[in-house]
Amino acid sequence: MSHVPPPPPPEPSPELLRRAAAVRRHARALAQRDDGERRAAVNAMADALEHAAESILAANRADLEAAAAEGLAPALVARLKLDAGKLAGAIAGVRQVAALDDPLGRRQLHTELDAHLVLERITVPLGVLGVIFEARPDAVMQIASLAIRSGNGALLKGGREAARSCQAILAALKEGLAGSRVDPGCLELLTSREESLGLLRLDGLVDLIIPRGSNALVRYIQDHTRIPVLGHADGLCHLYVDAAADVDQAVRLAVDSKAQYPAACNAIETLLVHETIAPRFLPAAITALEAAGVELRGDPRACALGVPLPAAEADWDTEYSDLVLSVKVVADLEEALAHIARHGSRHTEAICTTDPAVAECFLASVDSAGVYWNCSTRFADGHRYGFGAEVGISTQTLPPRGPVGLEGLVTYRYLLRGEGHIAADYASGERQFRHRSLPLRRSDPSGSA
Amino acid sequence: MSHVPPPPPPEPSPELLRRAAAVRRHARALAQRDDGERRAAVNAMADALEHAAESILAANRADLEAAAAEGLAPALVARLKLDAGKLAGAIAGVRQVAALDDPLGRRQLHTELDAHLVLERITVPLGVLGVIFEARPDAVMQIASLAIRSGNGALLKGGREAARSCQAILAALKEGLAGSRVDPGCLELLTSREESLGLLRLDGLVDLIIPRGSNALVRYIQDHTRIPVLGHADGLCHLYVDAAADVDQAVRLAVDSKAQYPAACNAIETLLVHETIAPRFLPAAITALEAAGVELRGDPRACALGVPLPAAEADWDTEYSDLVLSVKVVADLEEALAHIARHGSRHTEAICTTDPAVAECFLASVDSAGVYWNCSTRFADGHRYGFGAEVGISTQTLPPRGPVGLEGLVTYRYLLRGEGHIAADYASGERQFRHRSLPLRRSDPSGSA
Repeated sequence: MSHVPPPPPPEPSPELLRRAAAVRRHARALAQRDDGERRAAVNAMADALEHAAESILAANRADLEAAAAEGLAPALVARLKLDAGKLAGAIAGVRQVAALDDPLGRRQLHTELDAHLVLERITVPLGVLGVIFEARPDAVMQIASLAIRSGNGALLKGGREAARSCQAILAALKEGLAGSRVDPGCLELLTSREESLGLLRLDGLVDLIIPRGSNALVRYIQDHTRIPVLGHADGLCHLYVDAAADVDQAVRLAVDSKAQYPAACNAIETLLVHETIAPRFLPAAITALEAAGVELRGDPRACALGVPLPAAEADWDTEYSDLVLSVKVVADLEEALAHIARHGSRHTEAICTTDPAVAECFLASVDSAGVYWNCSTRFADGHRYGFGAEVGISTQTLPPRGPVGLEGLVTYRYLLRGEGHIAADYASGERQFRHRSLPLRRSDPSGSA
Repeated sequence: MSHVPPPPPPEPSPELLRRAAAVRRHARALAQRDDGERRAAVNAMADALEHAAESILAANRADLEAAAAEGLAPALVARLKLDAGKLAGAIAGVRQVAALDDPLGRRQLHTELDAHLVLERITVPLGVLGVIFEARPDAVMQIASLAIRSGNGALLKGGREAARSCQAILAALKEGLAGSRVDPGCLELLTSREESLGLLRLDGLVDLIIPRGSNALVRYIQDHTRIPVLGHADGLCHLYVDAAADVDQAVRLAVDSKAQYPAACNAIETLLVHETIAPRFLPAAITALEAAGVELRGDPRACALGVPLPAAEADWDTEYSDLVLSVKVVADLEEALAHIARHGSRHTEAICTTDPAVAECFLASVDSAGVYWNCSTRFADGHRYGFGAEVGISTQTLPPRGPVGLEGLVTYRYLLRGEGHIAADYASGERQFRHRSLPLRRSDPSGSA
């Protein structure tokens, strides 16, 4: 997608409205399917992908040929490419999603308001997801399986460059669902740019937009929809090396946080170094980072200690997504915190120190989705957190925040069961509320809800 | 506020930006205050309100005189008016908020990712709330106390008609905070219309907008801000009287759900009646509802059974907020569900039936924040749910949904503590994740976080 934001999205076409309403209707039926039925449906999707592997790989080859003819950027081609191994990995991922614990029907609250007036809060699907992603066809399989596992329908829009791959994958997914208790109509592929823009205007039909792509794409979506957006526009992460850091450890953390996978949103863009440790830490860090291929840009004090290039003011606000790192020497923890508050994107920040008091102050003060002590920022990931699969990483303040697993695709409903209870009796004082907590676990053989 | 939406909000003024940044800075310090300090601060606010009672009531009288001179609508005057009793009630409410359990520092997740690499998810304040409300000066006391209790700063904008009252209340609240460990700068009153509009553009400085006012106000705010909005534009609630309903109970529920407080968002606007029970239920319901002063508007079949006025198509989408009720006879549960899906606002819907299977189908199928069986929709309220206080009621799909208590004002952060752990070791397979769940309760005497 272009980095120049396109004009405001058009009204959805009657055809898009019709298709979205159909997905919504099918999703309502899906919400009534039990754990076993949804699990079986996801496994059926995996089976169908296996059967269709040849046609999916052929479609992908056609996309790659078209991309070559159009001179697509190598990084995009790499993300577009599906080979047999990558496809097998994606199918294994679908089976992993099937194996995840059911996120639905969980009782989060259980209160007896009064005799025979009992309140429950139960997790339910969101409804319909709108998913917009660039290039990567493997994302279709991942998100579609997460959607069905959590009882949600999905409207999926892949990048134009992956059109043939996405179509082949979606055909297989629907064929899998056709043999299950879940209607294939729960998944719909949008193919035109007009449709993907119209999707942003489907409030009431779509409950959550999940963008997977460039910062510009995410920001455009956030600015042009009333539908909640799960995602992050920026990943501007910091590592702060405290005065009391173990220098060897700090060097290892800096290299891993920057260079282990520099295109990731959880890689660091700026290294903050306490002035008292800078003369010892920086020379070692520069050697190790340059050995890892990292270009370093420093403030004047960092440059005086060996950082080869000067940093411009814009560097502190730049997500390089590449082997580039800005370096700043700070007077103390306060200056580091102020720099992070001003320039960070509230994604993930880490401190390296052997001083527990300084570490706990950092952990309590930094207002990011992830705040780490003596470990790499690269751990900010749903798989690494043990969520089994990841919908995305959110840098918004409200939950869901940080790496989001299946729980980001569910909401809850309050169910209240009475025997003719009316509010007037409590307003008059004739009856009083008890508000007695009841067990959350469903050991009750009467099996409500 | 006018029901004609004003033009898009202007850029915030430098003065507003300066004041918002100051609140944010003070809120960061407030987030470091412990449970006892925040509780004491809220109690100090209550004490100060008591001391300032005379000047608050005098300011309110001045607002009322100005309102009378301007010919303000009686309903608005009623909401504007503070007498000694209403003020004492509001102050008692502030003390109740002080007494609520601390929503901060709760451990929601605790996982050993690997040896000495431990992940926690801990509740933290959102940051700064932007609160916009019409007329009611008592809302200032309620929201300000909820904000401080939950560790958040707040920018508050009251209605112009309540300007003197709000100023007197805020002066007292700040005086209370001045004697506590919480800086009075955590609360700021915005006084001009330009400021309240500029507030909508303070992304990055304000984390949540809480509107308390007309549907038109809420909708305008939702359409003109990128900041999340906690609230509801509509309360279009339904009661469905099933074929197997107890007629006497159904009549009582209908009267309470409509007439106990018709201006409330959780009052019903439409009564749906199964055709087989309509000939027995409707005559009794009409008598009881008309005795309660309710004007009834029915579809042709309801009118044939005695509903005096015909309903127009627009009635099914109208939140009367008044003693008016539309009535429709439906063929079955399916038609009732379809009507609710089409016309409801996903706030609260109830079924009256003695048939548990029908009830459970209704509870599982209706996608509203509250779904009730044999009780009045008027129970949809934070106090009645046992939350102690209510920030508002949300009809959005994503959590927080329904009546929102203190928990709607907090978010969480992931804290990860390691001993030099790097991602490369897991990528290479040298180390493996354990993902072992640890206890959530803080029995650990080493007292992390």
